[in-house]
Amino acid sequence: MELIDGKKVSDAIKITIAEEVQTILSQGGKRPHLAAILVGTDGGSITYVNHKVKACEQVGFASTLKTFDEDISEDALLDTIAEFNANKDIDGFIVQLPLPKHIDEQKVIEAISPNKDVDGFHPINVGKMMIGLPSFKSATPAGILELLKYYHIETAGKHCVIIGRSNIVGKPLSVMLSHKGYPGDCTVTVCHSRTKNIAEECKRADILIAALGSPEFVTADMVKQGAVVIDVGTTRVASSETKSGWKLKGDVKFDEVAPLCSYITPVPGGVGPMTICSLLMNTLQAARGKK
Amino acid sequence: MELIDGKKVSDAIKITIAEEVQTILSQGGKRPHLAAILVGTDGGSITYVNHKVKACEQVGFASTLKTFDEDISEDALLDTIAEFNANKDIDGFIVQLPLPKHIDEQKVIEAISPNKDVDGFHPINVGKMMIGLPSFKSATPAGILELLKYYHIETAGKHCVIIGRSNIVGKPLSVMLSHKGYPGDCTVTVCHSRTKNIAEECKRADILIAALGSPEFVTADMVKQGAVVIDVGTTRVASSETKSGWKLKGDVKFDEVAPLCSYITPVPGGVGPMTICSLLMNTLQAARGKK
Repeated sequence: MELIDGKKVSDAIKITIAEEVQTILSQGGKRPHLAAILVGTDGGSITYVNHKVKACEQVGFASTLKTFDEDISEDALLDTIAEFNANKDIDGFIVQLPLPKHIDEQKVIEAISPNKDVDGFHPINVGKMMIGLPSFKSATPAGILELLKYYHIETAGKHCVIIGRSNIVGKPLSVMLSHKGYPGDCTVTVCHSRTKNIAEECKRADILIAALGSPEFVTADMVKQGAVVIDVGTTRVASSETKSGWKLKGDVKFDEVAPLCSYITPVPGGVGPMTICSLLMNTLQAARGKK
Repeated sequence: MELIDGKKVSDAIKITIAEEVQTILSQGGKRPHLAAILVGTDGGSITYVNHKVKACEQVGFASTLKTFDEDISEDALLDTIAEFNANKDIDGFIVQLPLPKHIDEQKVIEAISPNKDVDGFHPINVGKMMIGLPSFKSATPAGILELLKYYHIETAGKHCVIIGRSNIVGKPLSVMLSHKGYPGDCTVTVCHSRTKNIAEECKRADILIAALGSPEFVTADMVKQGAVVIDVGTTRVASSETKSGWKLKGDVKFDEVAPLCSYITPVPGGVGPMTICSLLMNTLQAARGKK
């Protein structure tokens, strides 16, 4: 069993990005610039945004963090988005989700210029990804593809089972992995809460991707000997072992599943670090004027 | 075994659409108007476009058919699209594909206003469909969902296997059938040319959808007793039995597969008639200002 080390892969990709930034600057180009908008004081959101800003510094990007109180009006938020869309120095930006309930999240997503939508959430980017056209790809699925690539994990003709049909992981990943090319050409099955005999479906997987957000859902009896297991779950559960009072739990019962696997991602340190990495890669693409 | 009669379903839906048109007109509304652009003289394309125009007449829509010679420039075609986008009387329009090689098909598709894109091919409509937002849905997948609905075929928790990963059938259908709700909530597997043991995968299907464009690919040994089989194939093969010298062949070896099925679509007369029906439904939605 080999552990897929998302931290290591992410660090390697960040070094490549940092080198590209230096090349751009040495050729008189502009420093890539990622901006983020954070509304409210949700603990998870603040942590994620801070990680993103820190990652920008690591690779030599410029970063801007604009924060708003929980009670900002939708119009004021949309005004800021319009400013960022128009600001030529900002190559890409994100609005950290979730947003407070009085703000229409979909309206906000669609207000972001598709050319700066480095989260890949705008319907036009989702549609282009689906059709197989160049686009900003949603960060978590793109990060998973990078992990498969880094470890040279074969995908063509493999049966990939994805548990979860979310817009940000399950659905886009199912399309990306069934596309022609590498990583891709998988036979893909999408399972979810209405799937019958989910253990049996999972057990058929050469590559099993758990993205349902239910801690330790995948147990040893659901995994084929030699399978590749990718755990996308990151649920905060109460814990007396940590100072914060919680720890992250994946969707896979790691201790009993790991011995069966050819490769497996831990939580934390597997898929998680790759998500920010994808965001940086998308921002670099945006800065280059490509998608 | 029950035959799924696409002609009957399509006629029933057309009657409903015709009634809605009468209601709109009786309330002083505008007659829905579908326009089509045809480039060149491809036999199949002319037939399809003529069917679409005829279907418009049947339900009381206005229709416009604009034809161009094979050698029209891309710019001239884009000018016509811009005219149709601006023409308030046209609710929706299509550009019949395929286009001659000197024209960039994707550029043409993206030039169509998403609000008039009743073929549902614009990336923004593809993306909205994927996210589960209101959108113009691609005609063939939407027509297949209508068939399932008409025959009250249960889908929740059923294993649906789709052969083919095209942008206009396999991919969108896989997403639509895995969405929450009816018809949907299927466990969906997408198979394609790189799938290993495709017969075994197909044999697990409660609902088998063949959309690869390979005549009589699906044979009896690939189908589970009691399965629902939907045949999307429409390949023209040479035939001495018809005046035209060709006939349509589906992707399913009908004679040997049909006895195994609970439901099956014939070719022709199954999925085919539904495609135009979806186009009319999308146009009615466009006329109502909804998607």
